[in-house]
Amino acid sequence: MGTATRTSIQRVVVIGAGFAGLATTRHLSNKPVEVTLVDQHNFHTFQPLLYQVATAGLEPADVAYPVRTIFGRAPNVRFRHGRVTRIDVEAREIILADADRLSYDLLVMASGATTNYYGVPGAPEHALPLYTLSDARRLRNSVLACLEAAESRPEDFDDGAPTFVVVGAGPTGVEMAGALVELIDVAVRRDRVRIDSQHTRVVLLESTDSVLGAFVPEAQRYATESLRARAVEVRLSSVVSEVTESGVRLTSGEHIGASMVVWAAGVTVNSPLADSLGASRASGGRLDVRPDLSLEGHPDIFVVGDAAAVPTGGESPRPCPQLAPVAIQSGAHAARQILHRLAGEATEPFTYHDKGIMATIGRRAAVTQLRRGPVLRGTAGWLAWLGLHLVYLVGFRNRIVVLVNWAWRYLDWPSGPRLILADVERDD
Amino acid sequence: MGTATRTSIQRVVVIGAGFAGLATTRHLSNKPVEVTLVDQHNFHTFQPLLYQVATAGLEPADVAYPVRTIFGRAPNVRFRHGRVTRIDVEAREIILADADRLSYDLLVMASGATTNYYGVPGAPEHALPLYTLSDARRLRNSVLACLEAAESRPEDFDDGAPTFVVVGAGPTGVEMAGALVELIDVAVRRDRVRIDSQHTRVVLLESTDSVLGAFVPEAQRYATESLRARAVEVRLSSVVSEVTESGVRLTSGEHIGASMVVWAAGVTVNSPLADSLGASRASGGRLDVRPDLSLEGHPDIFVVGDAAAVPTGGESPRPCPQLAPVAIQSGAHAARQILHRLAGEATEPFTYHDKGIMATIGRRAAVTQLRRGPVLRGTAGWLAWLGLHLVYLVGFRNRIVVLVNWAWRYLDWPSGPRLILADVERDD
Repeated sequence: MGTATRTSIQRVVVIGAGFAGLATTRHLSNKPVEVTLVDQHNFHTFQPLLYQVATAGLEPADVAYPVRTIFGRAPNVRFRHGRVTRIDVEAREIILADADRLSYDLLVMASGATTNYYGVPGAPEHALPLYTLSDARRLRNSVLACLEAAESRPEDFDDGAPTFVVVGAGPTGVEMAGALVELIDVAVRRDRVRIDSQHTRVVLLESTDSVLGAFVPEAQRYATESLRARAVEVRLSSVVSEVTESGVRLTSGEHIGASMVVWAAGVTVNSPLADSLGASRASGGRLDVRPDLSLEGHPDIFVVGDAAAVPTGGESPRPCPQLAPVAIQSGAHAARQILHRLAGEATEPFTYHDKGIMATIGRRAAVTQLRRGPVLRGTAGWLAWLGLHLVYLVGFRNRIVVLVNWAWRYLDWPSGPRLILADVERDD
Repeated sequence: MGTATRTSIQRVVVIGAGFAGLATTRHLSNKPVEVTLVDQHNFHTFQPLLYQVATAGLEPADVAYPVRTIFGRAPNVRFRHGRVTRIDVEAREIILADADRLSYDLLVMASGATTNYYGVPGAPEHALPLYTLSDARRLRNSVLACLEAAESRPEDFDDGAPTFVVVGAGPTGVEMAGALVELIDVAVRRDRVRIDSQHTRVVLLESTDSVLGAFVPEAQRYATESLRARAVEVRLSSVVSEVTESGVRLTSGEHIGASMVVWAAGVTVNSPLADSLGASRASGGRLDVRPDLSLEGHPDIFVVGDAAAVPTGGESPRPCPQLAPVAIQSGAHAARQILHRLAGEATEPFTYHDKGIMATIGRRAAVTQLRRGPVLRGTAGWLAWLGLHLVYLVGFRNRIVVLVNWAWRYLDWPSGPRLILADVERDD
């Protein structure tokens, strides 16, 4: 950073290179501000496709994109690789894990969320979450290693075959359960993993009385039926009270033996980083924000994406759901307010433009619920889902590679990257 | 395995899914034997391109291919995922890390080699090898993290910029040094990593008086000149006596500060597994074999690939070099001898068909030394190298993906998968 220009050029620090932080940074590219984007990873993760990495349909590099490549041509953007541990709101500085400090005039906090275990004993130790790329890689290694073990040492498993339990039937849980069934099918038919596929189970546990809580009943029914037709055991009103090495226990007292437990029950914002802002919190630990997405009492700080209780801007008193479109729109909004601020203009309240929600169950089966218009399902829903995800994928190269991979998978060629790579450390 | 057929059908166990083990298994596919291929990884690694993974040009999945996918259609081949710890030659059993035992009638040992540190103090702790896919992934993370650190904390580096030292100027070392220079160039020009590229060094240390020892002097000169033209500091007759956290010390007493030391000095066969055969050893710990590649005193055991001192079959008293073509040819030979044995025929001695050797220095620069004919270099050498490696790549999908990646890199699109993924465990 040029020291001579410090007094005139505003320094914007963006924490987090997820959908929200990326949207903010994109909208500030080539604008008269000095942007520093900070992330503990040098890549952006396309989170909606993590379940595909977890089930060996896509490679990590298909859903991750180096931040530097995205902003390589924007002269006013720089990337700082590092983990932010604390924000000093008085000094207007962020503090990194390596003790470096970065000063800001304006801060955009887009640090995302982490897995919410809801205090369930054993869940952090024995269940595998699916929020980060590391999570997805760890899950994949576990699933594939479990199938290998089921062939070579079936005596180690109850009923001689593995049981996979997925906790939480939101989009992540539904997609994971659907993709697990497909992976097992490919492993047995294609790779001839000699397991007892009759006794291999995928169980989807949901605490409420329906899957895909945010969807309309028609979509929920379709999803439930599709999952059951694919032999996923969908169990509603099933609340997990404990996760152990050998499975999960429900509040009813029932114990379900499991070789692997996937935790897709939800996320929370409870990091020391969020705490260091000293702001009030909404449900899920999300930071309360003003209608323009700035922090109460700190007009120089905006909070966007999963970390914020983003107001809808409509009549609903409930904040927006923690979805990619909300992150993208709120991130862009913060950037626009920063430009308003620089121009001496008043900031504007955020309004969420809900274009619809979607979830996929598997090959040729998805539900796309547009805000206006019909619920698309089956092949139509799946094609809508496919198109939208390809459009949103960050890099041109990734889009092509993912498309090739999908085409391959779809045409059923025996070529998925079903590699068990060595251990992955937790890094969230 | 059907118990009824045990007495008639011969059980062949192949240890290792590298080039050698894969060649053996392929030649025994759909033959009247029962083959079990055992490997601690569920994939085959295309080792000649590991340096590309280490320098972020290719993804792990581009150079790895699931074993089950390769043999999914061969009814007489099964895969066992597991690490072999010992061979009980008397009982004709291999013992796995999980204590399972597999019986064999005929055994093919294709377990490869490991990095040879030649007893240099500090090398195993501080230098990074490049023999397995995990090695390559670890190297890539280190290089990229080092470049990030050089931007954000240049004060942590001597001269304010990183120095990369590569030990050993065989093909692996030459390719690694050349690719490192290209990666640094892409990082600076493309990703705008703000490092002092004038002071960023790549040093290639070689203990003998020439690079690419197995090549003719013309090829060696070309490689040395190409490397130097690309700003690689080629230092010949430089023997490393110690590796420390801060760099390498030479036998001359000189200390070269290094942010990262790549160990490409050679391999050895010194595993407890090889020891358990109780056979005599040639240079590099390789197992001595008879002309037909069986073990002296154990006609039921064949040793192939890097693990064996494979005789050339010609006049040379020295065994074949540890190269992919030797592994492939020796693996296939063992399979043919097994079929001879089953047919009641005598076994034949192995003869190595040397078609040439090649090494690449970078974009449009490689040397291809054919056994007969001229030394190809520059673009011609590079195209020969490219074509041959594509032909040898195991899977059709991988071949296409690698080709797309290469085309992209070559056309200089800013899209390489320069991701720093979380820690990788050593697994060799």
